[in-house]
Amino acid sequence: MKWDHKDLLTIRDLSREEIILLLDTAESFKEVSRREIKKVPTLRGKTIITLFYEPSTRTRVSFEIAAKRLSADTINISVSTSSAVKGETLKDTGRNLESMRPDVIIIRHSVPGAPQMLSGVVRAAVVNAGDGAHEHPTQALLDLFTMRQKKQAIDGLKVAIVGDIAHSRVARSNIFALSKFDTEITCCGPPTMLPPYLEELGVKVEYHLEEAVRDKDVIMMLRIQKERGGISYIPSTKEYSSMYSLKEAHLKEARKDVIIMHPGPINRGVEISDEVADGPYSVILDQVENGVAVRMAVLFSLLGGES
Amino acid sequence: MKWDHKDLLTIRDLSREEIILLLDTAESFKEVSRREIKKVPTLRGKTIITLFYEPSTRTRVSFEIAAKRLSADTINISVSTSSAVKGETLKDTGRNLESMRPDVIIIRHSVPGAPQMLSGVVRAAVVNAGDGAHEHPTQALLDLFTMRQKKQAIDGLKVAIVGDIAHSRVARSNIFALSKFDTEITCCGPPTMLPPYLEELGVKVEYHLEEAVRDKDVIMMLRIQKERGGISYIPSTKEYSSMYSLKEAHLKEARKDVIIMHPGPINRGVEISDEVADGPYSVILDQVENGVAVRMAVLFSLLGGES
Amino acid sequence: MKWDHKDLLTIRDLSREEIILLLDTAESFKEVSRREIKKVPTLRGKTIITLFYEPSTRTRVSFEIAAKRLSADTINISVSTSSAVKGETLKDTGRNLESMRPDVIIIRHSVPGAPQMLSGVVRAAVVNAGDGAHEHPTQALLDLFTMRQKKQAIDGLKVAIVGDIAHSRVARSNIFALSKFDTEITCCGPPTMLPPYLEELGVKVEYHLEEAVRDKDVIMMLRIQKERGGISYIPSTKEYSSMYSLKEAHLKEARKDVIIMHPGPINRGVEISDEVADGPYSVILDQVENGVAVRMAVLFSLLGGES
Repeated sequence: MKWDHKDLLTIRDLSREEIILLLDTAESFKEVSRREIKKVPTLRGKTIITLFYEPSTRTRVSFEIAAKRLSADTINISVSTSSAVKGETLKDTGRNLESMRPDVIIIRHSVPGAPQMLSGVVRAAVVNAGDGAHEHPTQALLDLFTMRQKKQAIDGLKVAIVGDIAHSRVARSNIFALSKFDTEITCCGPPTMLPPYLEELGVKVEYHLEEAVRDKDVIMMLRIQKERGGISYIPSTKEYSSMYSLKEAHLKEARKDVIIMHPGPINRGVEISDEVADGPYSVILDQVENGVAVRMAVLFSLLGGES
Repeated sequence: MKWDHKDLLTIRDLSREEIILLLDTAESFKEVSRREIKKVPTLRGKTIITLFYEPSTRTRVSFEIAAKRLSADTINISVSTSSAVKGETLKDTGRNLESMRPDVIIIRHSVPGAPQMLSGVVRAAVVNAGDGAHEHPTQALLDLFTMRQKKQAIDGLKVAIVGDIAHSRVARSNIFALSKFDTEITCCGPPTMLPPYLEELGVKVEYHLEEAVRDKDVIMMLRIQKERGGISYIPSTKEYSSMYSLKEAHLKEARKDVIIMHPGPINRGVEISDEVADGPYSVILDQVENGVAVRMAVLFSLLGGES
Repeated sequence: MKWDHKDLLTIRDLSREEIILLLDTAESFKEVSRREIKKVPTLRGKTIITLFYEPSTRTRVSFEIAAKRLSADTINISVSTSSAVKGETLKDTGRNLESMRPDVIIIRHSVPGAPQMLSGVVRAAVVNAGDGAHEHPTQALLDLFTMRQKKQAIDGLKVAIVGDIAHSRVARSNIFALSKFDTEITCCGPPTMLPPYLEELGVKVEYHLEEAVRDKDVIMMLRIQKERGGISYIPSTKEYSSMYSLKEAHLKEARKDVIIMHPGPINRGVEISDEVADGPYSVILDQVENGVAVRMAVLFSLLGGES
């Protein structure tokens, strides 16, 4: 099987086989970052642009490191220093960048669908690095990569996703991804943070954290998306924490080999306690490490793969 | 003929032959960006600094891509994260950068003459990437490159430049450049946006867009330079648009193979209509593509050329 | 002798021999920046992150150029575009970056001890590029390198450090460094800018600039650390200048081959006059040039050296 999409815009539109293909490819890139010389010539002479309309450390750096370890040239554009202030539309920005013949444009934008719109005007491959509350496909891929790494298989897993589901592109992309496998997904949070469409997607809904984590293989904690108004859906952070912060006591209800995930950045004491974040079940830093390998696989696959 | 200037500060000081030399050199670099592996080793081991005191996407990215495709190392400095806040003069900033032995410093600054001042204190080649309302030489070069590409020759062309001429370094550099060829230049805009020196330069002045575009081979539209106070020279954007926005109807007056240019970013509906910007006569995106080749040629020529 | 520290956090913890080792290593890198092709393959495939929580041109650029001339990949993170706004702790930022397997993290932070804390959570080598008013070890190293270059030896030197000593990490690191050699150190400034611990360190204190410079081999001028409140310790900048600005007349009191140093950026007319800054005794730009060589030596040594 071979990757044959121009872009990576959503998880929703990928098949189970395509997801597995990307995970398998990532597997082969993982060791590059552990070498003495962390660099392969695969994408030499390719131009990769990161176009970030929202602030980010982790994701931009992860993509940039992935690109550089593949020997691509990287160009960073962040909003504050961009011509967005001069009133150019995203479409025109995209067409202008395209004229400089980049090979990949990695875009993060607060508006859902922005990467799709960009894709329509450029021949370059577009990677969605997060678009509003819509999707964050490379995050879901690295999450599945981590689940498979820790649990051997994705099929059969019982996964709880806890927190501000309604505003989380990470939750959405993970729900779409896990739904393509034989998994059981439970979403948990205050009613105001649970979107109405969950049951249509076959996702269980649970309002009590104690119930949500019961017998789970994977517990994925989310932060409150303050920048997307999440804070206005709860009475107070303190009240939220008292009900939805994952503490050591909760883990007794889960499978005894449960793994705890979080897309980061974590807010210690808000949605996760120190002893859980830093404890033996946490795979949060594995997720970050796997992110580089997964993004190398995505860039590699979009630019022709196998060659 | 061989390039023998230390810097590229203005178009005004170049001869016709030097301009042609740079355009010819750019011709040879154009195909690099269309290769599978977009990279030549020409400037390996050279250090190129972009020093931008004004925000920019297009120009900084274009230079950075040009430098990277020539295998140079690039270092970006933008004002907001610079020691300008600690009160250092441009002269001292220049001398400090110079001490780190860069090969080229590409500077954009709001003050006319800043690149010249910088050049006086550094051995590195200085490229003016726009200094206030003074000059923007690589923009004029890529404009001429595009005219020559589309019209075979620059001599003989009738060119209209429309908009906020008084505050536009692009207009000035193009006027200087075109004046070295056998061209006819017409500037058009509201009287408050037309500088007094135009007629001295042999430029025709026209207040009506319909007249200005008549029989032209090239129509170059400019945006209002809000950041240089342009907006205060017109009653309102709406009124400006009603008189100076290029629409499809205008093109009937021009040569039937007219080309429409714009240095970007464009303000759709202000100085140019969608149907013109996206229509068959528009070469706006060719300009952007040619910008990379022209900047490769400039960097190459400044660093010794031909070798 | 071989370098055997994981990090470079302070000068205080280095031995005289270790300092000399780094200076000798820097000596061998100096010529790289003077070559036609300013690049050696030494650190190819290494990932070096600059993580700057305070604005900086000079230091970040110096490190970035040093890394690139050694062929390392560099990733820049500055606070304004980082996830600091999402409330992540430095410890978590460090652990996340670590998971992407960088080889070196170069950190500047306003909090003393931040690099030490970072070092505790990462396997990567950590370089302190300035932490509050605590230390700035590479600055002291480049200062010593410059003294040795100009004076042949560090032992025997009489050094005056003038200005806002209390808030200056440069002063502290230089005092620690010079104390490991047979030197005589005099600190000079208004009493409010002289910290109480100076005499314990064996440093002479002098309130009058005329006295402080007498018979000195080296005069190191400092700027007022406005960003650390320095300005509130003096009645006015004007008054400060009248007493502590180094002018040509002062130099008559010093050794006739005195050298004038300043870590930059300089404030002309405040702590140093034009004729001194630009005069024959000034080695300020030599310091900047040596900074690149010293930082190449530091990166090289931290990543295994000699190989």
